[in-house]
Formats: sequence, C-alpha cells, structure tokens
Amino acid sequence: MDYQSRRNHLQERLQRRKIDAVLISQPDNRRYLSGFTARDHGIEESSGALLVTTTGKTWLLTDSRYQLQAEEETGLPVLVYRKGLVRLLARLLATVDCQRFAFESHYTLHSVALAYAELAEKRRIALIPLKDLVEAQRQVKSETELSLIRHAVSLNEAVFTRIYSGLSAGMSETEVAMAIETAMHEAGAEGHSFATIVAAGSNSARPHAVPTTHRIKSSEPITIDMGLILNGYCSDMTRSFTLGPADDRYLTIHRIVRAAQLAGLAAIRPGIPMNYVDRAARKVIEEAGYGRYFGHSLGHGVGLAVHEAPSLSPRNRRILKAGMVVTVEPGIYIPGWGGVRLENMAVVRDGGAELLNHDATDLDL
Amino acid sequence: MDYQSRRNHLQERLQRRKIDAVLISQPDNRRYLSGFTARDHGIEESSGALLVTTTGKTWLLTDSRYQLQAEEETGLPVLVYRKGLVRLLARLLATVDCQRFAFESHYTLHSVALAYAELAEKRRIALIPLKDLVEAQRQVKSETELSLIRHAVSLNEAVFTRIYSGLSAGMSETEVAMAIETAMHEAGAEGHSFATIVAAGSNSARPHAVPTTHRIKSSEPITIDMGLILNGYCSDMTRSFTLGPADDRYLTIHRIVRAAQLAGLAAIRPGIPMNYVDRAARKVIEEAGYGRYFGHSLGHGVGLAVHEAPSLSPRNRRILKAGMVVTVEPGIYIPGWGGVRLENMAVVRDGGAELLNHDATDLDL
Repeated sequence: MDYQSRRNHLQERLQRRKIDAVLISQPDNRRYLSGFTARDHGIEESSGALLVTTTGKTWLLTDSRYQLQAEEETGLPVLVYRKGLVRLLARLLATVDCQRFAFESHYTLHSVALAYAELAEKRRIALIPLKDLVEAQRQVKSETELSLIRHAVSLNEAVFTRIYSGLSAGMSETEVAMAIETAMHEAGAEGHSFATIVAAGSNSARPHAVPTTHRIKSSEPITIDMGLILNGYCSDMTRSFTLGPADDRYLTIHRIVRAAQLAGLAAIRPGIPMNYVDRAARKVIEEAGYGRYFGHSLGHGVGLAVHEAPSLSPRNRRILKAGMVVTVEPGIYIPGWGGVRLENMAVVRDGGAELLNHDATDLDL
Repeated sequence: MDYQSRRNHLQERLQRRKIDAVLISQPDNRRYLSGFTARDHGIEESSGALLVTTTGKTWLLTDSRYQLQAEEETGLPVLVYRKGLVRLLARLLATVDCQRFAFESHYTLHSVALAYAELAEKRRIALIPLKDLVEAQRQVKSETELSLIRHAVSLNEAVFTRIYSGLSAGMSETEVAMAIETAMHEAGAEGHSFATIVAAGSNSARPHAVPTTHRIKSSEPITIDMGLILNGYCSDMTRSFTLGPADDRYLTIHRIVRAAQLAGLAAIRPGIPMNYVDRAARKVIEEAGYGRYFGHSLGHGVGLAVHEAPSLSPRNRRILKAGMVVTVEPGIYIPGWGGVRLENMAVVRDGGAELLNHDATDLDL
C-alpha cells in the first residue's frame, strides 16, 4: 500500500487550506495514512495519532504499549508520550513552524479539544477543526484496495456457505452467530467487522437485532448479517431465508426485497446523486405497498471501516464516483412477523455496478 | 435496580451546580441512570441519550431502531429523532425552563459540541461542559451491584476452568481465545467485556497482546486475560502459567508478581490514597530488580464498564472508598522472553479488600 502517496495527497489538500499541520486521531484514517494497524478500545483509549505537516514530515505519537508495533508497521518516526498526547504535542509543535493547526473535529472529544484550544492560545497559533477530510479521500478506492475488499467478501462468503450447510432447526441464534465468528477466525480473518446478526422469527423484524437464545424454527424467517476483516478491509453481507419450505407471505416479501435490490444495483453509475440509487430500490418496495416497513437507508460505503462514506440515503444528494464501494441492502421488517434483508456489495464502475458477491444462496426464491 | 434513586442523586448534584438539564450520552452512564441496555457501535453511532432535568423529568432520546427496546426497558418517555439528536433537543429545550444546559464533555465529539453551542447561543442559554459527573457516582457500588459483579466474576472463572482443562501444546493463541469467547456465550454471558487475550512466548511480553496463529509450546509462558458481561456488569481476570514444567526463570518471575499482587491486595482499605496501593505492589517488583519491566498501573475500577474509575495508578492521589471495585494486576514483561500478569478483582471494604475471585489456578507456584 502506498502510504506516502496518500500522505502527499493529503498534504496538497492541507496546503490549499493553508494548514501547516493536522493531527489524525480517527483510527481508520490513521491506518489509511500510515499502515499502523492498532485498534482503539473506544475513543477514550486511543492507541495513538499522526501529526502530518505540509512540509512533508509525519510523526506517529503513541504510548509505550504500541511503540514496537508502530515502528515495525509504519517506518515513521515514532514519538512516545508518557504523560498524555497533549503534552507531547505541545513540545512537538514548538519545533515545527506551525501557524495553523488542524484536528479532526468529528473524532475528537470536546474535553480534548479544550486542551488543544489552551495549547493553541499559549503558542498563539490558529486552531482549525476539520471534518471528514481523510474520509473524503478514502471513499474512492484504488485497484489494490478493491482487490483486498474482494478477498474479504470472498472469504466472508466461504464462511457463510460453510455455516449455511450445517444449519438445522433447533439451533439457537447465539449458537449460529458464535459458530460464524469462530469460522471467520479459523478461515484466517482478523475478526468480524461488526457483531454478527442471526435473527429468527419476530426478532428478524429488528434491523439491528442482537442474537438471543431463541431456537430457530423450520418455518420462520431467518436473517444472517455478517462481515469479516481481512488485511484491514471489511466485508458485509446479509441473507434471509427459511430452513423449511417458505410460505406465500415469506416468498412475496422476499421477492419484493430482491427486486428492490436489483433495481438499486441497476441504478448505480458514476455521476448520479446517491439518493437516486436509494429511490430506485425504495420505489419497488413502496409500489408493492411495504414502504413503511423499510425504515433505513439503502446502503453505505465499505472499506477500512464497515460503515463509511458514502451513504446511499434518501437525503444524500452527493454524486457517485467510480471506485466507490457500497452495500445495497433493502429490507422489509414487519413487527411481530419478522423481516427480510438482502445485502450485497458493489463497486461503482464507469459501466455501472460491479457486483463483488458471487454467493447466490436463497437470493432468487 | 433503583434507577429513580440514581437519577434523584444526580439531580441533587446538578442543583448544587445550578444546572437545569444535562444530556447523558455516555452509554454506560445512560444505562446506569435508565436501564437502557443498547450498546453503541462507536461514539459516531449512538443509540440515544438521556435528558435529565433538575425538576425531576427525564426523557430518553433515540432513533426508531431502538424505540421499542427503550420503552420496554426504561419505562421513561421515549422521544424519537428522525433528523438527528440536536434538532430534537432544540425542540425539547424550548418546552422546559432551562437557563443552564450541561453535556458530557468527555463523551461528546467536538463537532457535536459545536452544534450544542450554536443551539445554546440561539436560545440564550448557558452551555456547561461537565466531566465524569456520573462516573464519579458509579464508582461506589451498591450491594445489588456487588452481587451482580460477583456473578460475572464467578461465571468468568467457570469458563476459565473449563477451557484450562482442555489446553494442550500445539493449540494456537487464536483457537484458545475463540474457544473462550464461545464458552462465555454458551455459559449465558451477554458477551466478552474486552477482546480476549491469549498470548504465549514472546507475545506475552506485550501487555495488550493480540492473539496470533502462534502455536503454544509446552515450556513457554502463557497469559490469558479474559472477562465477560453478565446482566450488564463486567468481570476481568488474568492468569499466567506454563503448560509443561516451568523453568527457574519463569518460577522466579511468577512468584515476584504474585507477591506484588498480595501486597497490593493487603494495602487496600478505605481512606488511603489510590497510589498507595500501586506503590505497595510496585515496591515488591522494584526490590526484586524488575521495576522497569512493569510499565502500567496496578489496577482499575470495574462495573458497567470493564475499565472505569478509580484508577490505581502511581499518580492518582484520590482516596479509596468502601464499595469501590478494583482489579489488582501487577505484571513483569521481558521483551523477547515473555511476561507474567496476575489479575484478581476486589471490593474495598471497611476491614480491607474482599477478594471477588475464588479461582486459585496457578497462582501460587
């Protein structure tokens, strides 16, 4: 991965905004620009930050636990803080010519920003809160990234296929979810990209269901939403089905959702607004009379994060670009009965959507 | 759990600071005050916030995905936002007599705080950033909470015992870690309280090691650090050992760490500064000549969060109180060789530490 050219690209954008140095604390952005793979146990337990200057210097600031890893993975000069990031930052900013210092407003706690403000006032430098600067850069993937995402999708499908063949009535949702996550590790994944959803019966009516001890019945709808991380890149896939023969109501709803998914995929191409894709899929569900049972957005970007820009939401009027990777995941959720969601991932290509999934299990019933 | 009395206690503290309403966004604080068990997928994907007023009103603000769960779990009035929390908050603050509005500075993104500031300016109300208000309240546990924590510790030990009996040379670190997390679910836990650490050989020299595909050898040091969540409350325990006979170097280091742990536990009692406990344990390791191989704090609080206040760090001069729950986990980490860490949990009682662990596996070699 060419981290240097990513940083060069960032530096050019900083120069245009007349920013001398930026602190990158968002973990995926930090990894994107440096290759440092450490994860943070929540925003309160950071494993470090990058200071990128427009003169071409970059430091990785971390604590002693991560020093070795940071040096090995990034090749960047690593500075270790013992009394917190802010004190080290104060010393470091004194050594570089910095009039305008920026930080990530959308991934910095208010209490930490207060400390930056104090520091900036003391050193008489301007403090610039930035939003989504690196996120914007991350939206369009390189071919190398697309290849890594393809591998993550493919491994996720292999895990799904293996688990699917062993499913039977009487297994609990939790049992299946844990089997999936264990299989992901055994298959060589770094981990799951989000807590695996296995939801059967009325639990499947919750888009963000948490697996329970409920034992799956042969006739009820089941939704499995799963994703893994491989080489840092995420996958995300949802399948809905029944173990035994599906009844008419299930088949009707499933086919509407599938038609909506295909309509969404068919609408994808560079240059169109993102809500146009959502509209194309949503229209199918609305016209079938189920509009009020589809409450979420059609899809989201996937990359180093499993949920990232762009959002295929009804309100997002930004324009799709070639190289973006999105999920297309319409759903119908009926309280008390259950739900159906079908999710695949696609790359925006000049000619339209390139589907990243090959799995066709229970898509076309 | 008496959520109402917790909120009453908070209201009294708010009144003393002349605050009319506070927004609670930190997920553990939100649960502590309401019983709402939803988890957040990172600070950027909140599942809601509480607005607590000093006149005794509390609302739960969330999005449609969580409405049902919020109503069922809390019995509080639930308000659903469709266009974001800030817009709903603006409408809500117009209906209550609020001159001084507070938010959690340590769990609010800078970009979100900017939106609050704009709202406050428009409505001419004072905006008060607060830190650790509810965290301070959470430090001292009730007997009901202690009983829940005891159950979480006990179940964690049962899982450890089960896995320990099946360990053999040639298993990979990841394999053991996944077996532990699966066993936690099977035993009825809600999940792990942090990603399980299984580290053997030189990997055990990293306090925050990530399990790898390394296959465990009979003679090398192994550290297992694991915790689960039961009824919302966390457990946290570490054991170090070797599968085959331990050599003299291992035994020497293990015994120093155990002596340090016992010294730390013996130092615990209400009224003493927290760094005094750290000192008591650290002194044992320093006097044995291993001081520079023990780089972290002695322990931390445990409750709804697996890492919470108070911190038993060398710099924390605050005073221990009866009812606090802390870990005591000294370690010695030697790069290239490996490490030993032993961690138990204890309640601060008037008479000294009440050990929450019963497991004695490989503690006294």
